[in-house]
Amino acid sequence: MAWERKVMRVVRVRNQQQVGTLARLLSAISDHGGSVGTIELLSETANSVTRDISVYAESLEHMEQLIEEISNNEGTKVITVRDEVLELHQKGKIAIRSRYPVDSLSTLRRVYTPGVAEVCLKIAKDPSQARLYTSASHMVAIVTDGTAVLGLGDIGPLAGMPVMEGKAMLMETLVGLSGMPILLNTKDPDEIIATVANIAPTFAAIQLEDISAPRCFYIEEKLQQMLDIPVMHDDQHGTAVVSTAALLVAARRTGVALNESKIGQIGLGAAGFATANMLMRLTRNPVYGADLSQEALNRLKAAGGRPSTLKEIMATCDIIISTTGAAGLIKPEMVRKGQIILALSNPNAEIEPDVAIAAGAIFAADGKSVNNVLGFPGIFRGAVDAQAFRISHEMLAAAAHTIADMAPSGELVPNPLDKQVHMAVARAVASMAMKQGIARADYVPYAEE
Amino acid sequence: MAWERKVMRVVRVRNQQQVGTLARLLSAISDHGGSVGTIELLSETANSVTRDISVYAESLEHMEQLIEEISNNEGTKVITVRDEVLELHQKGKIAIRSRYPVDSLSTLRRVYTPGVAEVCLKIAKDPSQARLYTSASHMVAIVTDGTAVLGLGDIGPLAGMPVMEGKAMLMETLVGLSGMPILLNTKDPDEIIATVANIAPTFAAIQLEDISAPRCFYIEEKLQQMLDIPVMHDDQHGTAVVSTAALLVAARRTGVALNESKIGQIGLGAAGFATANMLMRLTRNPVYGADLSQEALNRLKAAGGRPSTLKEIMATCDIIISTTGAAGLIKPEMVRKGQIILALSNPNAEIEPDVAIAAGAIFAADGKSVNNVLGFPGIFRGAVDAQAFRISHEMLAAAAHTIADMAPSGELVPNPLDKQVHMAVARAVASMAMKQGIARADYVPYAEE
Repeated sequence: MAWERKVMRVVRVRNQQQVGTLARLLSAISDHGGSVGTIELLSETANSVTRDISVYAESLEHMEQLIEEISNNEGTKVITVRDEVLELHQKGKIAIRSRYPVDSLSTLRRVYTPGVAEVCLKIAKDPSQARLYTSASHMVAIVTDGTAVLGLGDIGPLAGMPVMEGKAMLMETLVGLSGMPILLNTKDPDEIIATVANIAPTFAAIQLEDISAPRCFYIEEKLQQMLDIPVMHDDQHGTAVVSTAALLVAARRTGVALNESKIGQIGLGAAGFATANMLMRLTRNPVYGADLSQEALNRLKAAGGRPSTLKEIMATCDIIISTTGAAGLIKPEMVRKGQIILALSNPNAEIEPDVAIAAGAIFAADGKSVNNVLGFPGIFRGAVDAQAFRISHEMLAAAAHTIADMAPSGELVPNPLDKQVHMAVARAVASMAMKQGIARADYVPYAEE
Repeated sequence: MAWERKVMRVVRVRNQQQVGTLARLLSAISDHGGSVGTIELLSETANSVTRDISVYAESLEHMEQLIEEISNNEGTKVITVRDEVLELHQKGKIAIRSRYPVDSLSTLRRVYTPGVAEVCLKIAKDPSQARLYTSASHMVAIVTDGTAVLGLGDIGPLAGMPVMEGKAMLMETLVGLSGMPILLNTKDPDEIIATVANIAPTFAAIQLEDISAPRCFYIEEKLQQMLDIPVMHDDQHGTAVVSTAALLVAARRTGVALNESKIGQIGLGAAGFATANMLMRLTRNPVYGADLSQEALNRLKAAGGRPSTLKEIMATCDIIISTTGAAGLIKPEMVRKGQIILALSNPNAEIEPDVAIAAGAIFAADGKSVNNVLGFPGIFRGAVDAQAFRISHEMLAAAAHTIADMAPSGELVPNPLDKQVHMAVARAVASMAMKQGIARADYVPYAEE
């Protein structure tokens, strides 16, 4: 699909009124490996037609080449090239807003001094009232040190801000929570822990994001021990939930029983390790794991898994999940008949699904649709609704099952913008927290926006 | 005025249709020291009239007494008593919102992966681009440890949250900035400094709030040294700016020259010390100061002021400002003819203005209208607009002069909800930062919402 491409520009062109000019232009773009999204007609005269064309390319160099080709098309003049993605990010994508207007001195006196004093005293007397009368009830910190942003690596917290803001937008849009990016000016795990713990009273939950492995394991574990609100590293558990949901759908569709299958996880970084863990707890069987790092293999072993190798896993496992970031790592000749293969690395999979199927796999998918947007909003909304002390394995499993149950027929996962899905996840997570007795709330609210 | 009262309730009453019932009811309230705001007619039948009456009292006990009196009024039935202030605070007063909707997969791909990667890389290459493409450009941390909230003292950060949210509402409403409360789970000054410094990349400026003296001086100074964004303790400088503005108006109205007057500051806490400092820099004369704490007097001396006593200041100074929190501290017999007296403690002044005038003062005012809401929004908007490295004395002085210049004739200060005032303050502050060469921006934007 066009939007999987990395670079998008809106190219405004004026074409001569002549049959075939636009068609020739579009051919030129596709002939050179580009693709086209929306084409908007802006104005038309007797002599010319002006349009905005969304053009997608693989890289900036590729985009330049495409624009050159467009300019060279007979009868076409390029007027402007706009970067709409950048325009969307101007001044940032989120803002802190009042929930109602302060438009009179009388309102001012109620929301600020002197009226506010009564509310302050109420909370001073009983701190649990803060969940009723402050925004701490719906604020979720989205914390990063910028050490593992997308596939870009350690680009620093400020450069990670656009991603954190994107997550905050999704938090609001999908489940009505207030996600607040917190950019950390330190990479020291203990300093990160102390800093997050020191600002924790502001928030109903803490979402750790894009913190590199193995630091992320230590940081998450310590914060979970220190704080009595949910702390979750999304790159681990959010991704594990969505991968597990996809696997549940694949198993259901192929009639394969997960707990009777030998499962291999290739790549034991944050996402891979958490997925292996989740599958071990779901199936009560060990998961086989491969990774280039001995430390990662030791970690798997300590968690009850079986250190293995890429070759051995491909030769012996029924189900393979890969999260290595290494495109083309799985060769067709490694695939055995009847395997389920989820090659989840983005933007390029370890093996393309059609190649895997041709090589004998019974089911194959890549990571294009397995987006962690499906996980974190509902998980956090459920945990916050239940006022849970923490997020348990069972709450995550409930999320995975709900996502799998809501995948439309023929799809691996549901549409990530379907709010019904996120609200169903929230309810399942909140109910499980209540059932396990790790919730402060004594009823499960019907989650809505 | 009614809204100066501490407690407000909306009382729904049903009165018999009989001439004089409402009048009798209102008399009963005023006879018992209460007052009435809005009266809303809800429904009327042949037999009865139902109304919502906003009733103001001095305390919760007083309110109970008033409601008892209302119930006892002949022909009146109290149906409900609602706490509208508390209702306004339900679920908190602020939220983090998307600046535009994420309503399609194509938008999702632009604001989140994969489109966002290009913006991330742009910032990784040139961090100053974060001021163009992230919300860090308009986010201001409102940081408190809850040790000096309003006049309530050390009630803790969570109980201070309603005040921080009120400030965030005003930030958005008056100058369009995103104020984010940060509640600190520590009272240790060095830990506070480390924590704020560690999350600073998230913000364009840091507003310290309701942190007790003398800790606030050390914390502010250290953070100013460590960070290259504006850090301002509002209780010091925001309040000093507004007090100074009021004094400028008072001096102008009475024809008194500030730099030829002997000025005394009674009370050298956060606000008093900062006001004394500001006046010393404005007038180039020492300010006389009184405080119960020897440490506060030493601090004044180190800053070039003259330690003194309440008695001596009242006996020798031409202008007296008091910020002690001690109602009635200044006795009428201490007042000398021709003095300007700003007794700014809230809710009750050190001397009532009419009492001071009767005792001989040429000008007297209390702190009811001298609200720091007039200061911090414009000061921060100006500093953020200019992308200033810090907030200088000259920027604060520019704010004070602008506020004074915009006070309507007959008023000590402007209406705190007048956005024109805040935008004028922002422009003055930004211009001064540019003039002093401590701004990154190379033009002064015309500040608007």
